[in-house]
Amino acid sequence: MFNIKIQPVSLEIVEALHQKIDNKIKPLGALGQVEALALKVGSIQNKLNPVLKKPTIVVFAGDHGSAVAGVSPYPQEVTFQMVMTFLAGGAAINVFGRQNGIQIQIVDAGVNYDFSEHPMLIHAKIAKGTKNYLDEPAMTEQQCQKALAKGAEIVESLHQEGCNVIGFGEMGIGNTASASILMSLFCQLPLEVCVGRGAGMDDAGLAKKKALLEQALANNPISGTPLSILSTFGGFEIAMMCGAFLQAAALKMVILVDGFITTSALLAASKFEPNVLDYCVYSHVSDESGHQQLLKFLKATPLLNLGMRLGEGTGSALVYPLLQSAVNFLVEMASFESAGVSNKDI
Amino acid sequence: MFNIKIQPVSLEIVEALHQKIDNKIKPLGALGQVEALALKVGSIQNKLNPVLKKPTIVVFAGDHGSAVAGVSPYPQEVTFQMVMTFLAGGAAINVFGRQNGIQIQIVDAGVNYDFSEHPMLIHAKIAKGTKNYLDEPAMTEQQCQKALAKGAEIVESLHQEGCNVIGFGEMGIGNTASASILMSLFCQLPLEVCVGRGAGMDDAGLAKKKALLEQALANNPISGTPLSILSTFGGFEIAMMCGAFLQAAALKMVILVDGFITTSALLAASKFEPNVLDYCVYSHVSDESGHQQLLKFLKATPLLNLGMRLGEGTGSALVYPLLQSAVNFLVEMASFESAGVSNKDI
Repeated sequence: MFNIKIQPVSLEIVEALHQKIDNKIKPLGALGQVEALALKVGSIQNKLNPVLKKPTIVVFAGDHGSAVAGVSPYPQEVTFQMVMTFLAGGAAINVFGRQNGIQIQIVDAGVNYDFSEHPMLIHAKIAKGTKNYLDEPAMTEQQCQKALAKGAEIVESLHQEGCNVIGFGEMGIGNTASASILMSLFCQLPLEVCVGRGAGMDDAGLAKKKALLEQALANNPISGTPLSILSTFGGFEIAMMCGAFLQAAALKMVILVDGFITTSALLAASKFEPNVLDYCVYSHVSDESGHQQLLKFLKATPLLNLGMRLGEGTGSALVYPLLQSAVNFLVEMASFESAGVSNKDI
Repeated sequence: MFNIKIQPVSLEIVEALHQKIDNKIKPLGALGQVEALALKVGSIQNKLNPVLKKPTIVVFAGDHGSAVAGVSPYPQEVTFQMVMTFLAGGAAINVFGRQNGIQIQIVDAGVNYDFSEHPMLIHAKIAKGTKNYLDEPAMTEQQCQKALAKGAEIVESLHQEGCNVIGFGEMGIGNTASASILMSLFCQLPLEVCVGRGAGMDDAGLAKKKALLEQALANNPISGTPLSILSTFGGFEIAMMCGAFLQAAALKMVILVDGFITTSALLAASKFEPNVLDYCVYSHVSDESGHQQLLKFLKATPLLNLGMRLGEGTGSALVYPLLQSAVNFLVEMASFESAGVSNKDI
């Protein structure tokens, strides 16, 4: 049985961090969320001078049996085609990763395609796509456990190579539908709050998607444990991300949370072990309609709001320089004392 | 008489840019404001493959006669002390500039202090601080013209060195008060909509500031021309930024707009020549209460909303990687055709 214990972030250093931040040469609180971010990273690392090392975004790809039912306007083969594009370096996540010095790793969590060896690709295929949850559970609980363990193993290995800040992204035609069902069940919110247009769906497509997902819920009696919910409606990439989140938090890494699907994997992770949330920085609120509600449910404050809905971890890649700025602010900026500048209270 | 003619941004290439963006390997519109930003930079440079060169943030510093009247809780000497901190590399703008490869230049537009030579410092002092607008106009129209021309000259010189993307920041105790009056007069909005807590003011201080600014308005009959308004209530750093904005747009540079005070200088610039707005990218909405209204007045969509209110150009420095990402997206990302990926319409 997959099981990870996560310690909450220590509060030991919080007061010293507050003091350091408030002595920086600026009006109190004048850097807003950048200050909150510095506090967060310092707390996670339990250091007044935190360091971000080997930033990595792991993109998990998997196919969904439900894709054939029409929960996405794109054909299933787009999943493997996009993986090929990641490996060729031509996708948005590659562009932003290169720019910001972020290592990109692609994981075949369960794509319906046989990939060759590639230095960027991690082979972790559970099966060639999930089953269609309109008919039967997407995966067995054994497969789900295997995916969780594999996600954890991948993060463990990156951590051993020196990475201490990590983000997760995903690719999988049909996975916004999967994320919507997970959100509905884990948050106990009506499906219509949780279902959106995904990668681009018109009104008719959206109505069809909602009807299909209602049907899927009706067709699959679930016991209500996190594992049963995740097995029945998850994707392999979502389950693997879930395990990755848990392991990253257990290793006290700084975790960048991306868009709707990634956040649904975090939501699932938080049902296994709520302390995972302590280690998360929320990159952005996406344009997918359920994401805002989902972030609210997690009491999360996203850093960016740029109307994005691409996935791949692109929100995390774009926000990374801001995370680095928060660390640099904490480490490099002068204090009133060191600069010899009058404070207003002096 | 200071006079700059600005051509509107050409629409010649807009359709080709739209086409290029829509053929990128992602769902239509999935990168949200990043796509809009790419369109903007491409249009300004009139290129399908725009390039950002020698990014520079110019921080204009000046003292305000009104500081002695109590429009800020900080003593006036903080202006020169902060300039010394900029020159020593210890301020937030230095930290973020270093991180993001942005050249920082500091301009003494009118600080009440004699600075020595320094490679980062441009001497452009109009006078040792403005007059107190509670008693008399802050500067003469001749001084204002001189400041406008000097700001333009500084930008012209940076452009000649190869810079094509520029941001402006400011430092000057008392300058949020000045910006509030300018906003009230140029936008014809009540002063109370335009006045906020600046660098950090309590309720009593805020009430006093409002009363003082009402008094300042009553004491100074103005003719209503942009020059008379800017001369009467501006600071030297604000007037110089105004000239800098106009020149940067005339030279078709990409302009990053920072917080409340910087935006007030842009507002003034737009009264001299409305086309200046065509070249602007709005970095962030600040926590200073008037800024949101001011951006609304300018029909501006800011990229970041991080509750910042520091000035110095810090919002522009933080948003710069995002601007670079928009350019990289446009230039480097694969298209559906080049990657051989199925589009949903195919």
